[in-house]
Amino acid sequence: MIRTDKTVSDLQIAYIGGGSKGWAWGLMSDLATEKQLSGQMRLYDIDQDAAKANETIGNQLTASDDTLAKWKYTMETSLQEALTGADFVIISILPGTFDHMEIDVHHPEKYGIYQSVGDTAGPGGLMRALRTIPMFETIAKAIKDYCPDAWVLNYTNPMTICTRTLYKVFPEIKAFGNCHEVFGTQKLLVEALADIKGIEDVAREDIKVSVTGINHFTWLTAASYKDMDLYPIYKEFAEKYYESGFEGKKSGNWLNDFFSSAQRIKFDLFLRYGYIAAAGDRHLAEFCPSKWYLKDLETIKSWKFSLTPVSWRKENEQERINKSKQLVSGESAFEIKETGEEGVLQMKALLGLGDLVTNVNLPNQGQVPYLPSNAVVESNALIRHNSISSISGGTLNPAVTSMIAKHSANQEMIVEAGLTGNRDLAFQAFLNDPLVNLSLEDAKECFDYMYEHVSSVD
Amino acid sequence: MIRTDKTVSDLQIAYIGGGSKGWAWGLMSDLATEKQLSGQMRLYDIDQDAAKANETIGNQLTASDDTLAKWKYTMETSLQEALTGADFVIISILPGTFDHMEIDVHHPEKYGIYQSVGDTAGPGGLMRALRTIPMFETIAKAIKDYCPDAWVLNYTNPMTICTRTLYKVFPEIKAFGNCHEVFGTQKLLVEALADIKGIEDVAREDIKVSVTGINHFTWLTAASYKDMDLYPIYKEFAEKYYESGFEGKKSGNWLNDFFSSAQRIKFDLFLRYGYIAAAGDRHLAEFCPSKWYLKDLETIKSWKFSLTPVSWRKENEQERINKSKQLVSGESAFEIKETGEEGVLQMKALLGLGDLVTNVNLPNQGQVPYLPSNAVVESNALIRHNSISSISGGTLNPAVTSMIAKHSANQEMIVEAGLTGNRDLAFQAFLNDPLVNLSLEDAKECFDYMYEHVSSVD
Amino acid sequence: MIRTDKTVSDLQIAYIGGGSKGWAWGLMSDLATEKQLSGQMRLYDIDQDAAKANETIGNQLTASDDTLAKWKYTMETSLQEALTGADFVIISILPGTFDHMEIDVHHPEKYGIYQSVGDTAGPGGLMRALRTIPMFETIAKAIKDYCPDAWVLNYTNPMTICTRTLYKVFPEIKAFGNCHEVFGTQKLLVEALADIKGIEDVAREDIKVSVTGINHFTWLTAASYKDMDLYPIYKEFAEKYYESGFEGKKSGNWLNDFFSSAQRIKFDLFLRYGYIAAAGDRHLAEFCPSKWYLKDLETIKSWKFSLTPVSWRKENEQERINKSKQLVSGESAFEIKETGEEGVLQMKALLGLGDLVTNVNLPNQGQVPYLPSNAVVESNALIRHNSISSISGGTLNPAVTSMIAKHSANQEMIVEAGLTGNRDLAFQAFLNDPLVNLSLEDAKECFDYMYEHVSSVD
Amino acid sequence: MIRTDKTVSDLQIAYIGGGSKGWAWGLMSDLATEKQLSGQMRLYDIDQDAAKANETIGNQLTASDDTLAKWKYTMETSLQEALTGADFVIISILPGTFDHMEIDVHHPEKYGIYQSVGDTAGPGGLMRALRTIPMFETIAKAIKDYCPDAWVLNYTNPMTICTRTLYKVFPEIKAFGNCHEVFGTQKLLVEALADIKGIEDVAREDIKVSVTGINHFTWLTAASYKDMDLYPIYKEFAEKYYESGFEGKKSGNWLNDFFSSAQRIKFDLFLRYGYIAAAGDRHLAEFCPSKWYLKDLETIKSWKFSLTPVSWRKENEQERINKSKQLVSGESAFEIKETGEEGVLQMKALLGLGDLVTNVNLPNQGQVPYLPSNAVVESNALIRHNSISSISGGTLNPAVTSMIAKHSANQEMIVEAGLTGNRDLAFQAFLNDPLVNLSLEDAKECFDYMYEHVSSVD
Repeated sequence: MIRTDKTVSDLQIAYIGGGSKGWAWGLMSDLATEKQLSGQMRLYDIDQDAAKANETIGNQLTASDDTLAKWKYTMETSLQEALTGADFVIISILPGTFDHMEIDVHHPEKYGIYQSVGDTAGPGGLMRALRTIPMFETIAKAIKDYCPDAWVLNYTNPMTICTRTLYKVFPEIKAFGNCHEVFGTQKLLVEALADIKGIEDVAREDIKVSVTGINHFTWLTAASYKDMDLYPIYKEFAEKYYESGFEGKKSGNWLNDFFSSAQRIKFDLFLRYGYIAAAGDRHLAEFCPSKWYLKDLETIKSWKFSLTPVSWRKENEQERINKSKQLVSGESAFEIKETGEEGVLQMKALLGLGDLVTNVNLPNQGQVPYLPSNAVVESNALIRHNSISSISGGTLNPAVTSMIAKHSANQEMIVEAGLTGNRDLAFQAFLNDPLVNLSLEDAKECFDYMYEHVSSVD
Repeated sequence: MIRTDKTVSDLQIAYIGGGSKGWAWGLMSDLATEKQLSGQMRLYDIDQDAAKANETIGNQLTASDDTLAKWKYTMETSLQEALTGADFVIISILPGTFDHMEIDVHHPEKYGIYQSVGDTAGPGGLMRALRTIPMFETIAKAIKDYCPDAWVLNYTNPMTICTRTLYKVFPEIKAFGNCHEVFGTQKLLVEALADIKGIEDVAREDIKVSVTGINHFTWLTAASYKDMDLYPIYKEFAEKYYESGFEGKKSGNWLNDFFSSAQRIKFDLFLRYGYIAAAGDRHLAEFCPSKWYLKDLETIKSWKFSLTPVSWRKENEQERINKSKQLVSGESAFEIKETGEEGVLQMKALLGLGDLVTNVNLPNQGQVPYLPSNAVVESNALIRHNSISSISGGTLNPAVTSMIAKHSANQEMIVEAGLTGNRDLAFQAFLNDPLVNLSLEDAKECFDYMYEHVSSVD
Repeated sequence: MIRTDKTVSDLQIAYIGGGSKGWAWGLMSDLATEKQLSGQMRLYDIDQDAAKANETIGNQLTASDDTLAKWKYTMETSLQEALTGADFVIISILPGTFDHMEIDVHHPEKYGIYQSVGDTAGPGGLMRALRTIPMFETIAKAIKDYCPDAWVLNYTNPMTICTRTLYKVFPEIKAFGNCHEVFGTQKLLVEALADIKGIEDVAREDIKVSVTGINHFTWLTAASYKDMDLYPIYKEFAEKYYESGFEGKKSGNWLNDFFSSAQRIKFDLFLRYGYIAAAGDRHLAEFCPSKWYLKDLETIKSWKFSLTPVSWRKENEQERINKSKQLVSGESAFEIKETGEEGVLQMKALLGLGDLVTNVNLPNQGQVPYLPSNAVVESNALIRHNSISSISGGTLNPAVTSMIAKHSANQEMIVEAGLTGNRDLAFQAFLNDPLVNLSLEDAKECFDYMYEHVSSVD
Repeated sequence: MIRTDKTVSDLQIAYIGGGSKGWAWGLMSDLATEKQLSGQMRLYDIDQDAAKANETIGNQLTASDDTLAKWKYTMETSLQEALTGADFVIISILPGTFDHMEIDVHHPEKYGIYQSVGDTAGPGGLMRALRTIPMFETIAKAIKDYCPDAWVLNYTNPMTICTRTLYKVFPEIKAFGNCHEVFGTQKLLVEALADIKGIEDVAREDIKVSVTGINHFTWLTAASYKDMDLYPIYKEFAEKYYESGFEGKKSGNWLNDFFSSAQRIKFDLFLRYGYIAAAGDRHLAEFCPSKWYLKDLETIKSWKFSLTPVSWRKENEQERINKSKQLVSGESAFEIKETGEEGVLQMKALLGLGDLVTNVNLPNQGQVPYLPSNAVVESNALIRHNSISSISGGTLNPAVTSMIAKHSANQEMIVEAGLTGNRDLAFQAFLNDPLVNLSLEDAKECFDYMYEHVSSVD
């Protein structure tokens, strides 16, 4: 890279999963508007056609007059090519196919186990993890070999397990995991401020939060706006909308949108424990005892959140394939719009172009005192030149921390099981998941089917 | 006390709960046959009549020609009297009445929560704890004031919480908790040896076990007899009797005995996790997710264990009152028989009359590495003159330790709630219990009723 | 306090030690130039005349036309008056007199123990701690009673022990300790940048550092300026000036200034361990084995740092008394100049007027993973509205952490000894100090004399 | 092996270092009198002649009519041969030669560093460790390959580092370290009992002790004989003999015996800290600041203990070589006498032939709560069939634990340095040793010479 006082050019970014139809375009968009950075984006994907398409789309964008930051997009055919000389590595892959995910999410329904997302906890999260861990083992080894000093940004789920695998395989890696779920909760606090206090148009970034927990089961121990403590405001808000739910200003509601919710689970957790849970309801539900929110379809409906069927993902994938074709052919124009992700800001901070405080996933060095050392946890961090320092997220009461700790313990077992191929250990993690309330016989049957199809679909 | 090389006379034992009809008689019996010890047993009870009756019964026993060890029994009217000058303190009280316990055990049934015992975990265990903690606070303060150097043996449930309260109130106390559930599991291993290997008449004490966990949710990480590893033998045994259950040689079976079980839960836990759980099935069930063993009456029946109705306890109490009257009047003769408890052996070891290794409940100083420091845990200990040293119980896998840790965290909350009167914290502990799978509304209603009746019965 | 979007007025600050001649004037100066804040400064001091003089000096300053921020200064005659209603509490006291300090610093010289400062570690630091702990016990109790929700900024030495005492006595206190020694090391890095790289006029605040350790024995695990890693630059600098020392641009050098040094100890520690020690050489020397830097006067001279004789402090005190008189009488004009302290910035951040990252002393919640939980440690923290969150300082190797840990353990013993009056424990802390390399007999004699004069001077 | 109810025959023991002239004969002697065991002792040594000589000596002993336990001794020429099929492995090697040890012990004297033993801590202990770690790496790998399930008894110094290396290289190893220094302290307590109380002829085994710390810097937190607390007796004893020292009934005293001491260091540590140090004075001195006991020859003389010159070891070696020749030739008869070591008892306990409580060195699982997890520590353990469970040794005050912790941290650095060849880390461990009070320049010079001669002697 070439560095001046205010800019970095010839920056080398390797993008593993660079054939992505959606997330990659968001990153292109964010980079296109960031004047301080330029360089080369090396797109690597096992789907080389998809990576090639993104190469075309990216370079067309660069060629556009409106684009201030000039990036060169290249498709790379091996990890070695993509990684050698990279300053940053971005990992955002889909492990397996939606056919695999169909089993992850829907097979357990035969046993009365409903999953709203199925990519983090629960039987689906477990199987996705077992499928993904070997891939991350390969990636970690390649980073060790080809760019051990690069900063690695992971966006792949299951976030905790993927990040933990990177560190287990290559302990000196400079990796962290990113997730926007906390941003969503900050936005909800913006809405609470408007609804309860009449304060409008507050920016998400101005909601200051203290973050602790594990990804998708993250909690805020403090929240403020300027000199206002948001806890009492959120309390009023949660009580006001506890029964009805709060669906906000956005178009659509939980009934006709597979990703929405009415925040009732967050409110319920707040009224139970007195802390703000900071992830979408669809994720939170999967970390709690099955009887609370995912007992049966009626219960789910009463909590006003959606299960995302994999059939929808398949349809959506087709739309995105079409979109890609149109972008490549020029039939459809690339539209630059801010994603709200902070990856570009993080890279700038790591380059010494401005400090940043934000939430990330990192091995526990004490920032989450109720979890074991080295478990991957989510908290704020201070990002500065070539350094990320975790910020203590404060404490929760034992009622909450023991729920988190149980999942964290399960995640450790899963990573171990995934790296060693220890099927018995994987089964114990399965048994221990709060969504798996099955007899030993049913549990074995369900697990066995899923385990045997974890990377193959008949 | 007066010490010779082989004996101790004039030993002073304070017995809190000394009006007990049953447990006290067992202790009298054990002492009557132990020639190395003699002295005074000071019986203190809020039911003074009961203590007085036991004074009579005890002194009659001492007067009997058959009794080799001569103990003087006295009823004391205050803790100060009972404790001043005591070498040992035994605490074995019934906190509250069976009317209170009726609410503990049966009120939650209205919400579909079944409890087999209701004195340790679950809603019943919580309420019993809240009732008992202030009593133990009083006792701990009295011990601090009147006999700070005495050794204190607690037998009262909830064991962990009672023992933890003693240490929280008087950190220098020399207390430990005793429970015979592990002995029961040693006896089951004796039966497994006979059943699988044809080795008969093994003594319970010759089954060597490594113990870890918390009281009533205790686990064996190793078990041996002479040079035989009992794990593979137990595995064969558990698989053989998994479906049918094992009811052993004792008269009666689980259908007509409120305290029996067919060990199916222990077998199920073994097949799930690969470790031997070392408590009765009725206790173990209460520590697991409600759906596993206590989902409904049919499920309970299928697991072949019994719920103990408080009505039975009431009837049984009446029988014991009658028995007491008969013993006092001489209508019925006191029968000396070994109880199998180790309290007397422990006292001898503490007096320097022979080292002993056995399982006890003590604050964690590292013997249970997966639980926090100072939490009360169960493990083996080496008892020698004026000292108890915990013995490391080894490790379990995280699937099991995270279940234990969740209960341990709950117990810490409960002790805090009980000592400070923090009702919110008590409610959070309630919500966090794996048996409480209720909606927030139902949980509040159930909790509120129980909390308001915790020490009073309308 | 009264809050607008950009300002806070009617802020109430209690200043314990408000009769200070020097430090108080610096704070007045910093406040006088800070337009966003105004309110009342309540000056409390056991020397009421001194507090009264500062009331006069402060109010004269406020009356001056140049002063933009209008503060009202009042002398308070009791802690209750000073604290009731306070938003912030500043503690900056001199515990005891310079006669006491004379014994702290110079009595051990009879036994060959030299101390450069004598207020933190060593025999002097211990005695000063024992003198100060009861005062901080009183202050902590008063804060608990009169302003439990106020933020408390401690500047008194021994910093770690004072702050730890506040938390031991009132665990819910919102206190932290401030020290500018790290700033001095940042300034040295500024000089290294100029000397080695020719980069001039860098601001101290632009040197970004990761901080870990305990006060006055603090270490930087990373240091950068923009995109430059300062570690290799400091290495070159340390090697260049290892023999000669570096005395910088300031007037005077270590020979004629009791507070200067030539940084040789910092360079030596860097070459020994590879980490940047971040306190003045006079402090660092006192934490190391006596034979390294404080063996005898010749050794001290060779390391080019000064012992500060208490006689100098006495003379200097007299000068400051005269200065105070002149300021009160108007003979001398109050001169506003920036102190470089960050107390005012910290208060603004806590009021929600701008986030701040800086180093502070706080109970360990995991930010310093090699020290026990709750020990008071120094690291960076993120200060935001009504919250301080510690930032992980990274790790050092065990050669350094075990030196720090030994002092931290000693500090825990000293606080315990000070709060309980346990003289034996104080003596063990004395024996354990690396500067105390005495025979048991000499150690006893030296300790006994000092202990008996800790709060009284014959 | 072949097992009957009371005996084990055909037991296979591999003895690494089996050419030992002295220690091996002791083991032969202990085995010869133990009727319950018999089998094969496989002698492996890099000095094959020495192993062959012991084969002859052992088999002659077995042939003797007096010998009740019949062992077959065989010399093995490779680790593979020695280990394959072994039930137990004994490791007792001399790493390097006495020429190496001469540098370890005497080279630092040029810098004023005196070492009484030079095999555990100090510059000598460090160099011996660096020499030994690669050997133990080889041994651990061989055990992993050829007898992973065998129990491994290590007797080699530096004990802690050797045992830690075994576990780092092969974490599942079933190894522990044995040392008789605690026995020596038990014997001193026997002498105290006689001297102070007039109680004679107490057996060493009847002194019950609670053990904590690290090998050669081990402490007793409790000691009793029957019902007597030995702490007050030892206090009287230590005070009585503090000045004069106590040299006991044995022939010889510290002046004419390189291994004796007058216990003055143990008494001094007791008077300083109030705890009984449980190793010989010659070892204890090396763990303390150099100025205390090893400052110069005069100081050493005043403490009445001896430095063991390596020249003596060389002479003694020659005597033992002659002794070996005489034993082989039959010129001298093998004399059976009890060694007082417990290795044979430990093997019996592990075979299920009788439980044993004794002190051993094991990875910390919580038994020494003030040291990190996995550091090798010394405490009591309960040895039963195929299991060793650590027994909590209780706590010391921080003045003592921080001294121990500093050495434990150094040991971790040394093992890391030895396994990775990290010379810088080895140097930092050198700098951090309390005996190394050198300037950076001297330290470098001394270290460099020793490091370069660690495995070679010019």
